[in-house]
Amino acid sequence: MKEKLTVVKIGGQVIDEEQALDLFLESFSRLEGHKILVHGGGKMASALAEQMNIPQQMLNGRRVTDEASLKIITMVYAGWINKNIVARLQARHCDAVGLSGADGNLIQAHKRPVKEVDFGFVGDIDKVHTDLLCSFLDRGNSLVIAPLTHDGKGSLLNTNADSVANSIAVALADRYAVQLVYCFEKPGVLKDSTDESSCIRSIDKPGALKMEQEGTIHSGMLPKIHNALQALDAGVHKVVIGKWDKLEELVSGVSGTQIQEG
Amino acid sequence: MKEKLTVVKIGGQVIDEEQALDLFLESFSRLEGHKILVHGGGKMASALAEQMNIPQQMLNGRRVTDEASLKIITMVYAGWINKNIVARLQARHCDAVGLSGADGNLIQAHKRPVKEVDFGFVGDIDKVHTDLLCSFLDRGNSLVIAPLTHDGKGSLLNTNADSVANSIAVALADRYAVQLVYCFEKPGVLKDSTDESSCIRSIDKPGALKMEQEGTIHSGMLPKIHNALQALDAGVHKVVIGKWDKLEELVSGVSGTQIQEG
Repeated sequence: MKEKLTVVKIGGQVIDEEQALDLFLESFSRLEGHKILVHGGGKMASALAEQMNIPQQMLNGRRVTDEASLKIITMVYAGWINKNIVARLQARHCDAVGLSGADGNLIQAHKRPVKEVDFGFVGDIDKVHTDLLCSFLDRGNSLVIAPLTHDGKGSLLNTNADSVANSIAVALADRYAVQLVYCFEKPGVLKDSTDESSCIRSIDKPGALKMEQEGTIHSGMLPKIHNALQALDAGVHKVVIGKWDKLEELVSGVSGTQIQEG
Repeated sequence: MKEKLTVVKIGGQVIDEEQALDLFLESFSRLEGHKILVHGGGKMASALAEQMNIPQQMLNGRRVTDEASLKIITMVYAGWINKNIVARLQARHCDAVGLSGADGNLIQAHKRPVKEVDFGFVGDIDKVHTDLLCSFLDRGNSLVIAPLTHDGKGSLLNTNADSVANSIAVALADRYAVQLVYCFEKPGVLKDSTDESSCIRSIDKPGALKMEQEGTIHSGMLPKIHNALQALDAGVHKVVIGKWDKLEELVSGVSGTQIQEG
C-alpha cells in the first residue's frame, strides 16, 4: 500500500498575519505522515514594492513580473516567508526544508510566451523532478516550497502557487497516496458565495459537471474545481478545499469541500 | 580513503557584480568532487536598507541586526542571492540546492549574549547537523549555503559567513577530506598589504606563529589565519586563501596562500 502524503497550499491572510501563521503551522506540524507545504506570498510583496517605489501591474489577477518585481518576489517568497516558516516549524520539531523550484532542479518551467500580454518572468511548469522530493520525504523531512521555478537557463520564474501545489501532487501520485488541500479564506465551495453555511460537503466528478451546467458553482470557484478534477484524473487520491484555520479537520474529512472520484 | 570535499566561501565584490559572479560560478561548476559554496551578502543588503529607509548600524565590522535588518538580510541572502546562484549553477548543469541554517536544522545557533554591545539577531554557532548535508552530497548535489542560522525557538539569526564556512568544513572533516577555500579581493596573505606580489605561497602552523610574533602578517589578516589554524587542528585537510577569480588555481594549489599542518 502506498504511504500517505498531504500537499497543502496556503496563501493570503494566513501568511500576512503572524498569529494566523503560527496557528496554522501548529496544525501543520501535527499532521501525520509525509507532508509538503506550498505557500504563496500574501500582500508582503506588493507592500515591499510600494516601499521601494516599484510600480506593480496586475492583469487578470496575475502579477506582471518585470526584473525588479522578480527580485522582490524572490526576496519575499524564497527568502523571508519560506525561511520564517521553516524556522517556526523547526521550533515545533517538524524537520522542514525550504526549497524553490530551482533547488535540485525541482521544477523546470518556461517563460510564458507573449501573446496579447507580456507577463514577464512568469513561468508555466514543464516538469517536476520527484527524486529529490522523495529522498527528503523518505528521510522524514517535511518540505516548504516557494512558488518560484526556473528555466534551466539561469532565470528564476514567478509561478502560480496553486499550479505548483497541483503539479507536485500529480507528480508524486505514482509513489504516494496523495491528498491535496487548498486552504483559503472560505470554509469550502459555497452554493451561495455570500453565505458561509452553504458549503458543499462533498463533490464527485459527475456532480461537479452537473453543478457547473446548472450554475450552482459560482464563477470564481470554477478554476479551483477544474484543477481539482484534473488532479484526480492524474491519480491524486482526494482534493480538499477549505479554510486555513481548520487544517486538521480538512485533512480528516470533517470540514471543507471534499472532491473525489465518483 | 575519504572522498574529497571542497568548501568555498565568497563575499563582497564577486556577489555584487553580475559578470564577476558568472565568471566565478563557471569555475565553481567545473570543480571536481563534492562541493559546498557559502556566500555572504555583499553590499546588496545595505543598499536595500537604504532604499527602505532603514538605518544600519555597524560595530567592529559587524552589522547590528534589529528585526527590520534581519528581514532584509533574510530576503537578500536566503532569497535573492541564494536562489540566483542556484539557478545559475543549474544552467551550468551543476545540480545545486540552496539552504539556510534553518533548513533541515542544518546549523543551530544561539543569539549572541548582550555584553557591552547588543548585536541583536546575530547567531553564534552551536552545532552543524551533517546528516542532511551528507545525504545531499552523496546523491551528487552541490550545496549553496546562505549565512543564516536558527535558534530552535523559531528565530532566524544573522551569522558570519566565514564562521559558517569554517563550522561546516570542520563538521564534515570526519567524513570527507575537506579543503576550505576563502575567496576575497586579494591574491592571498600578503607580507606587504600594499603589494600584491608579496603573496605568501605557503604557511604551516609553526610558520604562522613565527610570522605573527615577528609582525610579518598584518593585523587584518590575523583572524583569517587563526580560523584557518583552528580548522586544521579540527581535522580540515587544507585551507586556502586567495582571489575569487582564480578559484580553480586556488583549489589545485598554484595560486593563493596554502595553509597546512607543518
